[in-house]
Amino acid sequence: MADSTRDIEDLIELMARLPGLGPRSARRAVLHMIKKRALLMTPLADALQQVAVTARECLSCGNIGTHDICEICESEKRNTGEICVVEDVADLWAMERGQMFKGRYHVLGGTLSALDAIGPDELRIPQLITRVQNDGVQEVILALNATVDGQTTAHYIADQLEKLDVRVTSLAQGVPIGGELDYLDDGTISAALKARKSF
Amino acid sequence: MADSTRDIEDLIELMARLPGLGPRSARRAVLHMIKKRALLMTPLADALQQVAVTARECLSCGNIGTHDICEICESEKRNTGEICVVEDVADLWAMERGQMFKGRYHVLGGTLSALDAIGPDELRIPQLITRVQNDGVQEVILALNATVDGQTTAHYIADQLEKLDVRVTSLAQGVPIGGELDYLDDGTISAALKARKSF
Ligand SMILES: [Zn+2]
Ligand SMILES: [Zn+2]
Repeated sequence: MADSTRDIEDLIELMARLPGLGPRSARRAVLHMIKKRALLMTPLADALQQVAVTARECLSCGNIGTHDICEICESEKRNTGEICVVEDVADLWAMERGQMFKGRYHVLGGTLSALDAIGPDELRIPQLITRVQNDGVQEVILALNATVDGQTTAHYIADQLEKLDVRVTSLAQGVPIGGELDYLDDGTISAALKARKSF
Repeated sequence: MADSTRDIEDLIELMARLPGLGPRSARRAVLHMIKKRALLMTPLADALQQVAVTARECLSCGNIGTHDICEICESEKRNTGEICVVEDVADLWAMERGQMFKGRYHVLGGTLSALDAIGPDELRIPQLITRVQNDGVQEVILALNATVDGQTTAHYIADQLEKLDVRVTSLAQGVPIGGELDYLDDGTISAALKARKSF
């Protein structure tokens, strides 16, 4: 297509960069939005613009929110003695959907990976150690994915926390081998949390 | 999540309304965009805003473009004697990717469907008849999907065109039973176009 349809092609190209969308589904999505201009396309443009301005990473836990310190870290209803360590913000959100955990979180931002040259300092592991040392944390729950890298990372963190006066547990029953938290239903996550065992 | 993360939740909810995205992939997409704010999120917001303002349906063929008459209908390089009838704009785009067809298009906007109470007037069938009567069209190529509704619609259009002095053909070889154009590779579409037969 030529110059004046450039806008539409640019939009399709940007949409196709989203995870889970390819060129074909991007085209479908764009045509769908053009049909639902007032109800979907314009509100979506506004929402993206808004979030692009307001979204930020919590300076304490790494959650995504709209303040420097996220609502979970700010909340006085959350137990400060428990920190649940997750790989990604998506995993934190999955835990929250279960509405079971009343402590706080720590988002690593990935897992250790020799292959991808991701060491402890690429993740938010030093910040976790600092929180445990300074914030009166009694329990660290390792809620990492049941993958090789997830479990390697869990063991590494457990080792680092060994000298500190803190109980280290991990999600147990219910997380299938190779399973990723964000794919599990809320009940499974709740059961795994309830049955957590010492690491 | 509470009030101040409302923006992010609203965005996820809007993204989840796109075809091909569910709540989970919408969350993933939003987290991905927040990580790629300058390179993806802001450009996408701008592109959506832009297309929401500029996109329009071609008054002649129903294609989506940025002018009242689309570039294909405007182009002097395109053969005015051939009209290729497709269900959706996505199918038109699929035909164009094949770069084989040098005529013009007519987008129906769907298929006849007793179940969904979609009759000829809900589609752009009257406009097609008018174009054939007034524009010196020699051939109408029915490039509808090889589905029951697609073929019902093709037969209906062929009947309507019978009294007019126009050749009616359809895509033949290469379109699998039950297949939808937009899923086919460009070569298959080109082959089907080349081997088109009288309807
Ligand atoms: Zn936080
Ligand atoms: Zn047109």
